[in-house]
Amino acid sequence: MTDHILWKGDHLDLLDQRRLPLEEVRVIIRTQGETASAIADLVVRGAPAIGIVGAYGMVLAADEGISPDRAYNLLISARPTAVNLKWALDRMLGVWKSSAPEETREVLEKEAQEIHRQDIRLCRAIGRSGSFLIARDARVMTHCNAGSLATGGYGTALGVIRAAFEDHGHLQVLATETRPVLQGARLTAWELSREGIPVSVLPDSASGYLMSRGEVDLVVVGADRVAVSGHVANKIGTYMLAVLARENDVPFYVAMPHSTVDGASSFLDHSIIEERSSQEVTELAGIPVAAPGVGARNPAFDITPPHLVTAFITDLGVVRPPYPPILSVIARGEIEDA
Amino acid sequence: MTDHILWKGDHLDLLDQRRLPLEEVRVIIRTQGETASAIADLVVRGAPAIGIVGAYGMVLAADEGISPDRAYNLLISARPTAVNLKWALDRMLGVWKSSAPEETREVLEKEAQEIHRQDIRLCRAIGRSGSFLIARDARVMTHCNAGSLATGGYGTALGVIRAAFEDHGHLQVLATETRPVLQGARLTAWELSREGIPVSVLPDSASGYLMSRGEVDLVVVGADRVAVSGHVANKIGTYMLAVLARENDVPFYVAMPHSTVDGASSFLDHSIIEERSSQEVTELAGIPVAAPGVGARNPAFDITPPHLVTAFITDLGVVRPPYPPILSVIARGEIEDA
Repeated sequence: MTDHILWKGDHLDLLDQRRLPLEEVRVIIRTQGETASAIADLVVRGAPAIGIVGAYGMVLAADEGISPDRAYNLLISARPTAVNLKWALDRMLGVWKSSAPEETREVLEKEAQEIHRQDIRLCRAIGRSGSFLIARDARVMTHCNAGSLATGGYGTALGVIRAAFEDHGHLQVLATETRPVLQGARLTAWELSREGIPVSVLPDSASGYLMSRGEVDLVVVGADRVAVSGHVANKIGTYMLAVLARENDVPFYVAMPHSTVDGASSFLDHSIIEERSSQEVTELAGIPVAAPGVGARNPAFDITPPHLVTAFITDLGVVRPPYPPILSVIARGEIEDA
Repeated sequence: MTDHILWKGDHLDLLDQRRLPLEEVRVIIRTQGETASAIADLVVRGAPAIGIVGAYGMVLAADEGISPDRAYNLLISARPTAVNLKWALDRMLGVWKSSAPEETREVLEKEAQEIHRQDIRLCRAIGRSGSFLIARDARVMTHCNAGSLATGGYGTALGVIRAAFEDHGHLQVLATETRPVLQGARLTAWELSREGIPVSVLPDSASGYLMSRGEVDLVVVGADRVAVSGHVANKIGTYMLAVLARENDVPFYVAMPHSTVDGASSFLDHSIIEERSSQEVTELAGIPVAAPGVGARNPAFDITPPHLVTAFITDLGVVRPPYPPILSVIARGEIEDA
């Protein structure tokens, strides 16, 4: 657990993820405007974490006397593509509009806290679902940060690792550094090492070679979106790990809350993949590493086909192939929330 | 062609590769000691380039009145594991000891210049062997820097790309940045862009995804060592590219002079792979990117098995499977030099 999002009754106390791992600096957020800025400026990142912070931002907006619709629009514009932010704000807007004026403040605060607690419950359930897959002394590779810092405090892929470590206390994590933004080196290594979970960082390009040497027992990653077909959209490099794992007979697991399954999406269209700034690749810490005028490709996400996924680890349990029957039931919402 | 190694009759004029791509700074080398330092301090890198510079260092040693054996030992200690350096110094030591004293200076200079010219001839022959494999408008992925900067001036993998560009003038290069030292971003992109060859840099982890989208027509890389079996030792990440290319039906070529085939090596023993400093991974430009105390895995090379190699492109021609019959002939030296 990482208490990177703390609600203090009338303000938020956030860990500034931009300063990690060098400094642990907290940021106090007292207004809806400061909340939107914290999201836009990446003080907080990770889809579930952004949703939780956005929900608390609605409470702060109510305290400032901002109207529900205006608060909703201001917060969602901080990160218009974030599905979890929209989901959390929709939920907050619903209870705001349906509550009696004298109860609004209390109802909003309870709802935001419930969204936060629910995320931690879901992640703990994911961890319980998957911890048996990580044997004592296993060497577990993960990618990017699907950890406490990306969620309410426990993590999805790192939630599975945490749960296994709570069970038997003996495992090693191999964290890919995750270029270009280095979330693996900066965030995953930080949050695991401060809990005493052994972790080593490696260049993304060394992942396959360590597998070929028999030094990796399994891979577990998070997911931004999962189609009913079993296709996985996640941080760039996920597809690479899945192909390399298959080549080396290393199990490849995707851990996510069941709400990540998107019934509308088939992912046959690669055009949904955002290409980010080339400067993330051609500069390091503001210093150019490529000659002037050299361009860069920088897709932010990739798509992993279902035949490379050994199983999905969800709060509802482990889903094994064939995926479409179970994932389509999950996507239709016919299963009770955890 | 890049004139990064210039012999000026009584001194060497080297491009300082450490300053690329930000600055093109030349370093004047007048002594054997300065030559050894330039090799040790990475002013020059790349196995063939180091061999050439070492050979010129023997000429400078003779000018200083240093004895042949002492010059040899001082230069080889600058990079004891470099096979090409040893090969070039052995050759220089041989002619030094067998020459009449009054002819030594002239003989040594001629031999060093011949080693340099021979490397360029070999690379041009590699280019001619393989250029037909790169069709007009092809999108060619490469890794690290197997270019002019690593050789006498033309390159192995980049020699093939140069030759194809000279043939039809229409291709695009996708250069993996090659973490942790970023030779792709820093060196390959620099040397191609200054010759007008279109090049984009990408994170190593995006290579597979671009292949899966059909955006890569072939991969061509260099090799540090090739076994008779067809196993390839090369920069970390080469194996990753080979697996991803096979998964996506993208041809994967290895370009190298035939002298790279090592008859003594089977590569079944991964212990030959050097693990470099963890700081290369945990720091960027001297700034920590991982929490204090977090370790790193940093293998410098990897081994690619022969079933993933579509063909070898050598100065003697293109070698296709089965590899052992032809590679063993090459390794026994039964073929004339180019």
